[in-house]
Amino acid sequence: MFLAQRSLCFPSGRAKFLKTISSSKILGFSASAKMSLKFTNAKRIEGLDGNMWIEFTKLAADPSVVNLGQGFPDISPPTYVKEELSKISAIDSLNQYTRGFGHPSLVKALSYLYEKLYQKQIDSNKEILVTVGAYGSLFNTVQALIDEGDEVILIVPFYDCYEPMVRMAGATPVFIPLRSKPVDGKRWSSSDWTLDPQELESKFNSKTKAIILNTPHNPLGKVYNKEELQVIADLCIKYDTLCISDEVYEWLVYSGNKHLKIATFPGMWERTITIGSAGKTFSVTGWKLGWSIGPNHLIKHLQTVQQNTIYTCATPLQEALAQAFWIDIKRMDDPECYFNSLPKELEVKRDRMVHLLESVGLKPIVPDGGYFIIADVSLLKLSAIPVSAFCNSETKSQFEKFVRFCFIKKDSTLDAAEEIIKAWSVQKS
Amino acid sequence: MFLAQRSLCFPSGRAKFLKTISSSKILGFSASAKMSLKFTNAKRIEGLDGNMWIEFTKLAADPSVVNLGQGFPDISPPTYVKEELSKISAIDSLNQYTRGFGHPSLVKALSYLYEKLYQKQIDSNKEILVTVGAYGSLFNTVQALIDEGDEVILIVPFYDCYEPMVRMAGATPVFIPLRSKPVDGKRWSSSDWTLDPQELESKFNSKTKAIILNTPHNPLGKVYNKEELQVIADLCIKYDTLCISDEVYEWLVYSGNKHLKIATFPGMWERTITIGSAGKTFSVTGWKLGWSIGPNHLIKHLQTVQQNTIYTCATPLQEALAQAFWIDIKRMDDPECYFNSLPKELEVKRDRMVHLLESVGLKPIVPDGGYFIIADVSLLKLSAIPVSAFCNSETKSQFEKFVRFCFIKKDSTLDAAEEIIKAWSVQKS
Ligand SMILES: Cc1ncc(COP(=O)(O)O)c(C=O)c1O
Ligand SMILES: Cc1ncc(COP(=O)(O)O)c(C=O)c1O
Repeated sequence: MFLAQRSLCFPSGRAKFLKTISSSKILGFSASAKMSLKFTNAKRIEGLDGNMWIEFTKLAADPSVVNLGQGFPDISPPTYVKEELSKISAIDSLNQYTRGFGHPSLVKALSYLYEKLYQKQIDSNKEILVTVGAYGSLFNTVQALIDEGDEVILIVPFYDCYEPMVRMAGATPVFIPLRSKPVDGKRWSSSDWTLDPQELESKFNSKTKAIILNTPHNPLGKVYNKEELQVIADLCIKYDTLCISDEVYEWLVYSGNKHLKIATFPGMWERTITIGSAGKTFSVTGWKLGWSIGPNHLIKHLQTVQQNTIYTCATPLQEALAQAFWIDIKRMDDPECYFNSLPKELEVKRDRMVHLLESVGLKPIVPDGGYFIIADVSLLKLSAIPVSAFCNSETKSQFEKFVRFCFIKKDSTLDAAEEIIKAWSVQKS
Repeated sequence: MFLAQRSLCFPSGRAKFLKTISSSKILGFSASAKMSLKFTNAKRIEGLDGNMWIEFTKLAADPSVVNLGQGFPDISPPTYVKEELSKISAIDSLNQYTRGFGHPSLVKALSYLYEKLYQKQIDSNKEILVTVGAYGSLFNTVQALIDEGDEVILIVPFYDCYEPMVRMAGATPVFIPLRSKPVDGKRWSSSDWTLDPQELESKFNSKTKAIILNTPHNPLGKVYNKEELQVIADLCIKYDTLCISDEVYEWLVYSGNKHLKIATFPGMWERTITIGSAGKTFSVTGWKLGWSIGPNHLIKHLQTVQQNTIYTCATPLQEALAQAFWIDIKRMDDPECYFNSLPKELEVKRDRMVHLLESVGLKPIVPDGGYFIIADVSLLKLSAIPVSAFCNSETKSQFEKFVRFCFIKKDSTLDAAEEIIKAWSVQKS
């Protein structure tokens, strides 16, 4: 057990979380004051040292709590995925360096798969880059295309690395919140959260280099529909702006919803980098492989960053991933295909979490995609991963009452969570 | 076979190599002229898109040539290393995210090992960072500590990514060449190549933020001795400068030589980041795991870069590496320990290459460490990986007549090289 498996982060947990961060900041400051000036950090990372996951992982190391906080599956990855890695580890040549921009068999599998989804030819060598997770794709894209002084539009709440990555490039993040319509009486859905088109347009100007889109959305579970994406596409074209589309949960959409790729909208391919993740696609977050897909005139700049940062990704994992993809590419219309079976499995878990949270008086926002669920806990003074961690400082207060739960967990983990929440609910009443 | 196994890059090869680079530069320029300005690269990567490995890998894809160019082993990695990965791939939790700054069991193994070598305590959480190869460590270090306007001293020839990494940080590389004493009559050794202490001091000034040292050296095979390191250490202290010590070939030193760590010299621990590589240590270059070791006041800044670039490295590879390390840590005085057996195996291959090159009239520089051998081919008008690729533009001409061969290859590969070189030698005479 190298990762804590249990934690819900009740109020005491959160207080501890905040305390840990502030005391380490103070320590860091007083220690460096005595030292050589040459030991200081480069300006580009000034103030970027806080990261909630690092603090959270420490907290979650307490084995007495059930961890629905962090976004990693505790369900088993598909057996054939693990078996491919086991087989490949025995092949000498697959333990050595491979092509820097992506292992040949992997970029071939990716181009084959995405050609179907995009309904267009994709050049496996020039329009795809394999990276260290989707995280690495986000970093490469920002470093390759965003300059000091540029503006980048971020939709709040957002996956927490977007803001420091933009700042590390010397650019300014410009925030626009998703806002919820009133839903008195009926169930609250992630689709009740929308962007105001006028407000969105007001964020674009001549300095805007890019907008970062995330669909299906972490943490809200929102799946952007055709009209919503068209508004964004129109603005990107009108203001000649790039679109960085983080689609790591592309397969995880629930009944009644469909994942759409903004890169397939007219005029958008040439200005969009679309990002995917092996960790999310095959429930192997520890493999840290991702990819960027886009036109060669953009991808070539990401490739330049890659060759000056890590040069190449791990060969055995790339080959195993390629083999796993071929297994599922060959049965895409089959319900057994992991791209189809995982969302079916997760939809049951989502519904279970919705009922559990409702049963104790919490107000969940039912997600249309992804593997997180958010609940308004203001009535109950309970805290898990605060959604405010996904916000810039100005919008934090708006999301303070929400917490995020991860439901890609074994039923036994969810049983344990249910027991704790119910016991606690009885106790407080 | 995903990587070309055979190539020596004869003159025609080199001409093709240069041609490929320049034509792609021209193409890139004319194509982007028609496009949106927003599609251009960020300034930080301007001019950094050429990389000889990428072009070389394409050339080496011709199956009719024997590849002694690229630095990856075609000998088998140790069986237990491959077996650990195979076993671990079956364990669910080891396929998920782990601690961002290094998988707990791996940083523990590393701190245990290096505490012995440094003769000092090393905090596994605060003084070690696990990265995507040594390449990732170099990148993290430069981004964390080097600012725009800083100067960084590079010793020529140098591993080719140093220069673009320094430039990407907006800093200025300052070059100092290794120079060879005349060696008329006797064998030429990598130890004949030295730095001139006065010339080296002339490169230091108040803007100097760091010097990058590489021992054992790629491509010369030089193993810096105590006196040479003391000169560098004295200057680092006098000018309050950081030292980035790339020691990826630390175990590969041949009879009569000893690898010394500059971080163990008085006053140097606090200002040195020492970099290692799993790929080089266990002959698994495809695993792309590396590490930085240094004082917490420096490592903490590298950690900040890590959390804003990739967040974490692959879990199954890290766990397998930890297990492999424990196997060899437990038998470090045993000749079977891979840290001892690999250099013994390679010394035989080195000697074979020396004799082969001498037998056809080439003048090899006998390396004291590493797995490359350089030869002066000016007499023979033959070309392989030109050492000028490891130089800045001003010193290129000085190294133009040298080529680099990699000898961590199966005997059958070396047999094939021998046949080609001998046949060619007969033909020209
Ligand atoms: C929206 C989003 N983007 C990117 C990532 C990073 O993915 P990877 O693990 O492939 O780097 C995550 C992981 O949680 C995510 O939720
Ligand atoms: C001197 C030197 N440093 C760093 C590296 C990169 O090592 P890794 O593959 O671990 O990133 C190499 C690889 O050839 C090297 O020769």
